Amino acid sequence: MKLLDAPQPAEVAPPYPDHVLLTPGPTPIHPRALRALTRPMLGHMDPEVFKLNRAIQADLREMYGTEPEAFTALLAGTGSLGMEAGFANLVEKGDEVLVCANGSFGRRMAEMAARYGAKVRLVTAPLGEPINPSDVADHLGDAAMVAVVHGETSTGVLNPVPEIAELVRHSGALLTVDAVTTAGMEPFSMQQWGVDYAYTGAQKCLSAPPGLAPVAISERAFARFAARRHPTPLWYCDFEGLRDYWVEHTYHHTVPVNLHFAFAEALRAALEEGLPERRERVRWMGRAITEALAPLGFSPYVKREEARLPTVLALRLPEHLDDAGVRAELRRREISITGGLGPTAGVIWRLGLMGEAAHPAPYRALMVALEDILGAPGLVRRFEAALDAGSA
Amino acid sequence: MKLLDAPQPAEVAPPYPDHVLLTPGPTPIHPRALRALTRPMLGHMDPEVFKLNRAIQADLREMYGTEPEAFTALLAGTGSLGMEAGFANLVEKGDEVLVCANGSFGRRMAEMAARYGAKVRLVTAPLGEPINPSDVADHLGDAAMVAVVHGETSTGVLNPVPEIAELVRHSGALLTVDAVTTAGMEPFSMQQWGVDYAYTGAQKCLSAPPGLAPVAISERAFARFAARRHPTPLWYCDFEGLRDYWVEHTYHHTVPVNLHFAFAEALRAALEEGLPERRERVRWMGRAITEALAPLGFSPYVKREEARLPTVLALRLPEHLDDAGVRAELRRREISITGGLGPTAGVIWRLGLMGEAAHPAPYRALMVALEDILGAPGLVRRFEAALDAGSA
Repeated sequence: MKLLDAPQPAEVAPPYPDHVLLTPGPTPIHPRALRALTRPMLGHMDPEVFKLNRAIQADLREMYGTEPEAFTALLAGTGSLGMEAGFANLVEKGDEVLVCANGSFGRRMAEMAARYGAKVRLVTAPLGEPINPSDVADHLGDAAMVAVVHGETSTGVLNPVPEIAELVRHSGALLTVDAVTTAGMEPFSMQQWGVDYAYTGAQKCLSAPPGLAPVAISERAFARFAARRHPTPLWYCDFEGLRDYWVEHTYHHTVPVNLHFAFAEALRAALEEGLPERRERVRWMGRAITEALAPLGFSPYVKREEARLPTVLALRLPEHLDDAGVRAELRRREISITGGLGPTAGVIWRLGLMGEAAHPAPYRALMVALEDILGAPGLVRRFEAALDAGSA
Repeated sequence: MKLLDAPQPAEVAPPYPDHVLLTPGPTPIHPRALRALTRPMLGHMDPEVFKLNRAIQADLREMYGTEPEAFTALLAGTGSLGMEAGFANLVEKGDEVLVCANGSFGRRMAEMAARYGAKVRLVTAPLGEPINPSDVADHLGDAAMVAVVHGETSTGVLNPVPEIAELVRHSGALLTVDAVTTAGMEPFSMQQWGVDYAYTGAQKCLSAPPGLAPVAISERAFARFAARRHPTPLWYCDFEGLRDYWVEHTYHHTVPVNLHFAFAEALRAALEEGLPERRERVRWMGRAITEALAPLGFSPYVKREEARLPTVLALRLPEHLDDAGVRAELRRREISITGGLGPTAGVIWRLGLMGEAAHPAPYRALMVALEDILGAPGLVRRFEAALDAGSA
């Protein structure tokens, strides 16, 4: 094994700048995860890896607030694969699936459910507004599954999952929740609420490297899966195959071991910080940013405060702001923020406050740049004052 | 952003030994890939990442020997997802698929094809023997696809893909080839042979970290995909979604950017070493190992030399060797090799010679350990002499 190439070879397609990522994901990788990423390689069937996997499963139960024996695992793919695995395993041709679709990710759920043969019905809400639980109640019928995105990344809306879960709980329908922008940072309680399948992406609230989708599956969901009439098409994420590997320790497919190394450290770091402390940290950051930008005409896009997703701060832009121009100038200065999507393009900015992004330092960099670009003296000072007035 | 935690927090589930991995995958990560893995994070829609992706696509065309304009990409999952994506996109309900199944991975192909609704017919061969092309000719009929594993990891057999391709070429069937243990190390020529879909895993012959499946899709395969009657269930790897991201640069899902960083370096390192040079390196190593172990009663498991897979050396064990005991003792000394699978358990060892595993140093460690464990003086000396006699 060569340990060092000498002379150092040229990199493919440089440069790779040290960039300030303030988007709705991916987030900057937690330093502890970064260190673990380069550990010497082990095989996916090695005892050290199974021991690590058990620790990951236990920590995921805590993060998702599951029943003590709930099945948790990492899928070897990104958050969208987590979404797909739920429909692939828990929906059969002809099943009625009620999808709460008040943004891009809700609509993606509807498309996936349809691809697996579901009869899809939609509950919608006006752009920037949460799903109304009474609309879910009205359309529940004999749905086999209800699916909802907890935090809609595309609009910064937090849907009322506990209220929806309460309605679904006794209906016989399974409840699938997209926890991509919430789990690990926002309160999430699968057992207490009655969620049957939840997933997120490693690179969101946990600031682990992308490429893994942590999932949790209730016993009720596993029983539904076990009663399938036909195997799921999706061999790669077949729940039985997952259980073979994660519980029985038999080979299913090669899991990405280094990503497991890094993920375990990022998740443990989150639990050691404390989920309530993380919840407070994102709110503290969100308030400081909002207060600092308010005098420039930025205002919360989502009207009702309880419907604002704290981890993706959606701010309505002041009139006459050159959205594309300002973001391009920020990009030139190696700072990324994200605009709206579709109908909100040019209307809002979406600022990521997940995991390692939700710290003063990277947002200080944004404020310094904006103070200069927008010619807005006092912006940095207001941001610092708001941080000082709040508490993490 | 905290740049260093002080004091250093305890790792999750240690220890993590510096292990000698000589299995059929994953392989030790190439040092150049390891360095790239920890680059500062960028977003999946950042221009630097699209530039890198274009370089990866060009290098993959070279590795797979495709037509100049063939579509290549990385799937955000492991090799099995590469296998699945082929059937998911190129097979529709009722299609006849002829699967060459002379090992575990051929049988996995058959299972996946069936899950996507194919009528599957099998061509088999006795254990440890390659598929006979005339059997393919006899069963071709009006198959919509023929699928074959180039190198059967489970038995160390190299199937005659060029001869099979020649038969399939004018039949109207698509040809899917599992290149997991070959592409990047063994000759592979998609265009010249007439292969329509090929895939591998990043952690095999290229020694990139696991979690990516590099794929190549012929224009003919894309045309078949475009003529589908129904969308594929597999949204995550839908060929159109892949093309949206890799060619049109529109969002489909969050690709694992750090894995792209590492993969690009590992692939470029392979091309800079030279594919013919890598081909020679693995043969040189295989000869030296075989010669060194022969006096102890180890012999090639695959009888016909041209049917031996150079990257997974399958050796029949001497009688009375305590397979499980010796491998456990090796494991205690932090060296992993792999035994047989199913009917070859206790009969063979499988030694990985892919990527960074195919160097003298890690196999020297194996020989030193075996000389001691087996009480076989001269083993290391024979190995060194055979290396000296050969040439890399």
